[in-house]
Amino acid sequence: MTVLTAQPLTAGAFAPFGDVIEAAGEADRLINDGKCGRYHALAHADCADGAVGLNIFRGTAYATPLRPKLVERHPLGSQAFMPLSPEPFVVLVAEDDGGLPGTLHAFLTASGQGVNYHRNVWHGVLCPLVPQDFLVVDYVGDAPNLEEYEFTDPPEIRLPRRPAGDGP
Amino acid sequence: MTVLTAQPLTAGAFAPFGDVIEAAGEADRLINDGKCGRYHALAHADCADGAVGLNIFRGTAYATPLRPKLVERHPLGSQAFMPLSPEPFVVLVAEDDGGLPGTLHAFLTASGQGVNYHRNVWHGVLCPLVPQDFLVVDYVGDAPNLEEYEFTDPPEIRLPRRPAGDGP
Repeated sequence: MTVLTAQPLTAGAFAPFGDVIEAAGEADRLINDGKCGRYHALAHADCADGAVGLNIFRGTAYATPLRPKLVERHPLGSQAFMPLSPEPFVVLVAEDDGGLPGTLHAFLTASGQGVNYHRNVWHGVLCPLVPQDFLVVDYVGDAPNLEEYEFTDPPEIRLPRRPAGDGP
Repeated sequence: MTVLTAQPLTAGAFAPFGDVIEAAGEADRLINDGKCGRYHALAHADCADGAVGLNIFRGTAYATPLRPKLVERHPLGSQAFMPLSPEPFVVLVAEDDGGLPGTLHAFLTASGQGVNYHRNVWHGVLCPLVPQDFLVVDYVGDAPNLEEYEFTDPPEIRLPRRPAGDGP
């Protein structure tokens, strides 16, 4: 069995799979008489026929360690998940290995981070650790847009150990 | 001077201007082995050349009553604002009157509501009441996409009076 410990989500580590959506550092520009900072174009929605929809996903909590049964991908579009509350969630992606999922990578988001999976990137289902809503930006249309790959031997994904002395 | 009291935001009242993005009632479908409810296609991103970007706007708080100096509109795309924390914010829109803003309408969102302004709808700038981050989905490209209309006599927008007995 593959055992992974979720790593901190960083733009660099996630770049092969998609974008990290976060307000990091200074805003790209100030608008509205300086009252608002715009962190510009953190990700793009790349969907067939320009059919980009906004949805809310209401997720229930997953227990850890996670034992995901499958990964999936979407041939017709990117898919972004932005949490509407500050709690972290678990992100699982896989490298592509000749059209099948290869090496797995697991991440734990920091508060305020979302992700945008690029088109055709293998990824796990939404895995919040508490009940949590997400704004999801993806292809909304009638064409088939889901491929699934079921693991014969599901991996185990552990959360990082909290630093010593961090809470009870 | 025009004085408006912000009204509760409902899909029906907002329909001439755009979409309300909220998880109301039962989900449209259950996915992920029943672990996640999908509120499907609550809004569409309608942007020229399919150039849809995801941005974060970091807004500072506005004092009330509001005295907005202008409204604006975007000829190249819709623009969605989804709050990343539960506090309500103020939404100002105007009917179109021969290419200029006409009758104004002000709304106060409920917790968890976002809005998607349709293309070319006159609207006010982002007006949170506390410091607040939003995911913004709009046109990201190089073509000019902003028209502004400055009020000669800015309106005043008041918040609804809280019901008697609601808090200190």
